[in-house]
Amino acid sequence: MNEALLIAATVVLLAALLALRSRRGSGGQLDSSYDESEGERRLHKWGYSDTRFEFDGPRSVRVTGSRYPLAGYSLPFFVPFAEEVLGVPITPEEMVPEVERGPLPPGRSCEAFLDACRQQLGEDHAATDDETRLTHSHGQLSVDEIYRLLYIGSLPRVADLVVFPESEDEARRLVSLAVEHGVCLVPYGGGTNVSGALSLPPAEERPIASVDMSRMNRILWLDEDNLQACVEAGITGKELERLLGERGYTTGHDPDSVELSTLGGWIATNASGMKKNRYGNIEDIVVEATLATPAGEVESRRPTPRNSTGVAPRLWLFGCEGNLGLITKAVIKIHPRPEAREYGSLVFPSLDHGIRYLKALRREGALPASIRLVNNTEFRFGQALKPAPSAGARVKTAVQRFVLARVKGFDLRNLAACTIVMEGTRRELVWQKRIIFSLAKGFGGVSGGAHNGRRGYMLTFAIAYIRDFLNQFHIMGETFETSVPWDRIHDVTGAVEEKLAEQCRSHGVRGTPYLSYRITQTYHTGVCIYFTMGFSGKGLEAPDRVYHDVEASLRQAILDHGGSLSHHHGVGKIRAAFLPEVQTEASLKILRETKRAMDPDDVFGIANGALAADR
Amino acid sequence: MNEALLIAATVVLLAALLALRSRRGSGGQLDSSYDESEGERRLHKWGYSDTRFEFDGPRSVRVTGSRYPLAGYSLPFFVPFAEEVLGVPITPEEMVPEVERGPLPPGRSCEAFLDACRQQLGEDHAATDDETRLTHSHGQLSVDEIYRLLYIGSLPRVADLVVFPESEDEARRLVSLAVEHGVCLVPYGGGTNVSGALSLPPAEERPIASVDMSRMNRILWLDEDNLQACVEAGITGKELERLLGERGYTTGHDPDSVELSTLGGWIATNASGMKKNRYGNIEDIVVEATLATPAGEVESRRPTPRNSTGVAPRLWLFGCEGNLGLITKAVIKIHPRPEAREYGSLVFPSLDHGIRYLKALRREGALPASIRLVNNTEFRFGQALKPAPSAGARVKTAVQRFVLARVKGFDLRNLAACTIVMEGTRRELVWQKRIIFSLAKGFGGVSGGAHNGRRGYMLTFAIAYIRDFLNQFHIMGETFETSVPWDRIHDVTGAVEEKLAEQCRSHGVRGTPYLSYRITQTYHTGVCIYFTMGFSGKGLEAPDRVYHDVEASLRQAILDHGGSLSHHHGVGKIRAAFLPEVQTEASLKILRETKRAMDPDDVFGIANGALAADR
Repeated sequence: MNEALLIAATVVLLAALLALRSRRGSGGQLDSSYDESEGERRLHKWGYSDTRFEFDGPRSVRVTGSRYPLAGYSLPFFVPFAEEVLGVPITPEEMVPEVERGPLPPGRSCEAFLDACRQQLGEDHAATDDETRLTHSHGQLSVDEIYRLLYIGSLPRVADLVVFPESEDEARRLVSLAVEHGVCLVPYGGGTNVSGALSLPPAEERPIASVDMSRMNRILWLDEDNLQACVEAGITGKELERLLGERGYTTGHDPDSVELSTLGGWIATNASGMKKNRYGNIEDIVVEATLATPAGEVESRRPTPRNSTGVAPRLWLFGCEGNLGLITKAVIKIHPRPEAREYGSLVFPSLDHGIRYLKALRREGALPASIRLVNNTEFRFGQALKPAPSAGARVKTAVQRFVLARVKGFDLRNLAACTIVMEGTRRELVWQKRIIFSLAKGFGGVSGGAHNGRRGYMLTFAIAYIRDFLNQFHIMGETFETSVPWDRIHDVTGAVEEKLAEQCRSHGVRGTPYLSYRITQTYHTGVCIYFTMGFSGKGLEAPDRVYHDVEASLRQAILDHGGSLSHHHGVGKIRAAFLPEVQTEASLKILRETKRAMDPDDVFGIANGALAADR
Repeated sequence: MNEALLIAATVVLLAALLALRSRRGSGGQLDSSYDESEGERRLHKWGYSDTRFEFDGPRSVRVTGSRYPLAGYSLPFFVPFAEEVLGVPITPEEMVPEVERGPLPPGRSCEAFLDACRQQLGEDHAATDDETRLTHSHGQLSVDEIYRLLYIGSLPRVADLVVFPESEDEARRLVSLAVEHGVCLVPYGGGTNVSGALSLPPAEERPIASVDMSRMNRILWLDEDNLQACVEAGITGKELERLLGERGYTTGHDPDSVELSTLGGWIATNASGMKKNRYGNIEDIVVEATLATPAGEVESRRPTPRNSTGVAPRLWLFGCEGNLGLITKAVIKIHPRPEAREYGSLVFPSLDHGIRYLKALRREGALPASIRLVNNTEFRFGQALKPAPSAGARVKTAVQRFVLARVKGFDLRNLAACTIVMEGTRRELVWQKRIIFSLAKGFGGVSGGAHNGRRGYMLTFAIAYIRDFLNQFHIMGETFETSVPWDRIHDVTGAVEEKLAEQCRSHGVRGTPYLSYRITQTYHTGVCIYFTMGFSGKGLEAPDRVYHDVEASLRQAILDHGGSLSHHHGVGKIRAAFLPEVQTEASLKILRETKRAMDPDDVFGIANGALAADR
């Protein structure tokens, strides 16, 4: 009787607390998911220089600055969690400094090209200083690029100069000049690529000019009647949303990298956004786009809604990975900012319950803009990033746990959680919520409140900084993703877990490897699984090499169990060797001949995917 | 006072009648939109030989057979309507017979190829008789192909033989044999193409073998876990739906030609289905597809939900129009048959009211599977296909008209109407209906009842037969379509109307040209407009030539006013000359070089679109 009373009381208390929470952070205000303020980009590392994880006590960390909701709070649980899952100490004493870098060797001579650029484009349209060259010689591939640069000290090839076109006309002239002077051009957008697509080919004998597109960042026209806009390709997601927001519009494209990555980069990588259920992936968002190639302009002259006019040239742009030309602009769909946005969250007894729920939800006609499901490890990772709780919050957490474990019978080491973002008209959201939450009950799901949904969604933007924090302890980490049919989800995740453990054992890795994952997107025939992996490289003879081998073996395990080569990160360099498992020999040959037709001199010699050097 | 009473009484009566009607034909039973029974295809003309329009009295027609809901009824309004809009007499006395056709000239010699086919594929896998050759030498392009064949008497080039592969392996062997023997192959699906894509190039010196894919019509596997199926490309829509229906599934792909057209044809043309709002167009439905080219197989080896693995080879298949190889199979999305289907209709005071409604509806999150808007002429065309009414129906029609005209203030010569098909869960349909009908009020829309919605949707399948009826009076008719941004709809339709009148005047066409149109699809940035046009060719010296010139001038008017070259019919031969207005020179050159990479000997020499002979 006593227990029943206690349960009743706690349920009432919990309901009151959740109701209170739901009112905050919900209510449909259309705050942005990230700080819209400008900021200086951090050299080489992820993101903005005002933001980093740092110790604020021997066992606790904080995020500097004020850019993200996480910033400013002391986070006492993160270091203990990381130590627990990685099995290695994370203390200020364990930190190792970055290597000292001397000046770069001088770039390959390309005086004539440089002069022509400065003359035809403008004096400040080219740079040859070390810092600019080096930052344009890598993306954000965690180990092969960032860890190697910071802790091993070198990149195999560095750009010889960087050029900055400011208009489509300048971009076209650059291409002509490169043809004329025998220079290799590498398109550079936000520098956030994580597939090695920005790693410069070591064997490239010609001068390499990185083409920084960041000054091509204007909205050329905005067509409110037809809900489309023509935008230069160098614009970042953040700037695009800011400019559109001023006019009352949004693209709805929200990749994890949205603050930094660019429209051109999204197209070249075939990007996916978190809210694709409502707004589509990049191939759905882009109506037309323009590619400046040495053979001329590839585009369709009229942006019309949908066509049957033969094989569409625009299709060459999606996934071109810098191989074919400069993406200069695109006509994209724009949406009036939705009347309402609400967050939600659900907790399920297990990942499998959540997966079955996600599949069932697709048949109900009420898909929210975003719904993501984290596995138990990733759930605990998210919990570990909570600030030190107040006394009230401690009570609340204890009550929540009690209810989940004792009342609902959840195993806290087995549960999984969904974060949900709904956007639309107010009445649409009423309908969506009714379906989403009533359906969840049939799969053992209970609401975790709007606040946790919002927090989970926002966390995405801040956690990328953790890699750079952990690198300081020689912990190498990376995310990787795949798309898999529904019935292969457990196979693929199981195979990756097993293979990672086996590989780390056989390579003599210290501690235990970390692996968590979430389902970030659902489709009719399956899902995208997004993995986060990390392990200590300390004591390994060639940690970057080991990491690369481990990652390749995980990719093979994914392919062997029915996953794809990539859902949205791309092929780049690190997955090029797997392409023949995915595409036929004829397809690859035809892709290479199409490239030759566009770029007979291989001006765009970045050699990604089907154009990789070993092909 | 008297009038107010009368109005009140008629409204009550009308409501009762509409309610009665709504119960019939609604209620969510999942009847197919067409008769699923097999039937013999009519030679050359559209559809099945059991169905045709014929006179059943001096001024009335009926549809033979029992295949379509329209069949068996006497239709007394159609001939008067046609005479009114075309301004020419349509009487049994005006009918002209088809030309007599003698035997075909013998085909080009290809004995060695024929022998090899019979030996390697089977004796009955090839045919050289006249009837088979001739039926495989055209599509359903109304004037250039059908009218010319039936009333002028010749086609510029006829296939020399027809081959019938029965498996992917046989298809591959056919391609090898064609390379070896210097034979030109032309893929042939349902023969429903209306862009001249099946017209054989007159200058082709090699023997032409039409590759009839109809025996490759099996579902190779059906994956219920992941809601996808692998299907041979020669299957017709009707057969595909029948086989999937037996297992409880549907593709939801419902082009007007669904009974006859094939999976391979849909891909090659980049087809669109009436229910694309729910199920997508063909590029959304197909997960992977296989193209057998002389350079080898183009396909991705793993059907996974969505990828970022470089430029996707599958994209070459959409819109390839027979130029690149044989499409042998595809993995497609399948959907459990929806829990419910309901029809609806709306009447608007004008087309513009309807257009603004369609645009607004897209923002409400409750798009029905299909919603189509007919202009006033097309509305009256639909009315003209109603059977002779019973006394009760006459009263009802009079009441409806009275209410529309006197109570609602509609101008019967200006109104426009929507037909609606909703599919989904029962509660989804409740939600959709609430949004759809409540939103319509704000645009002056009133419900026309479920019965009229169903009838309007079904009519699509029967009206194609009208062309062949009217041809007998030398009335040449055709449909053509375009996609246009929202703000260009009136410009485009106005320009087409004006240009048609002007052209017919200047060519000395008798009577008046007929033009009606409907909006068949809506997209974020615009719509598809589907035109129906016809005029009398009687007395013209070269009616087919005049028709072609008129159509080309309408296409130019469409392009000049912001429409696309085609929404779903394709480029084929008749629109190839316009391609340089739509694609850049570089794009067309690269397309041709891609073709060369796949098919260096031009085995697939059908020369459509960018590969047209004059390029």
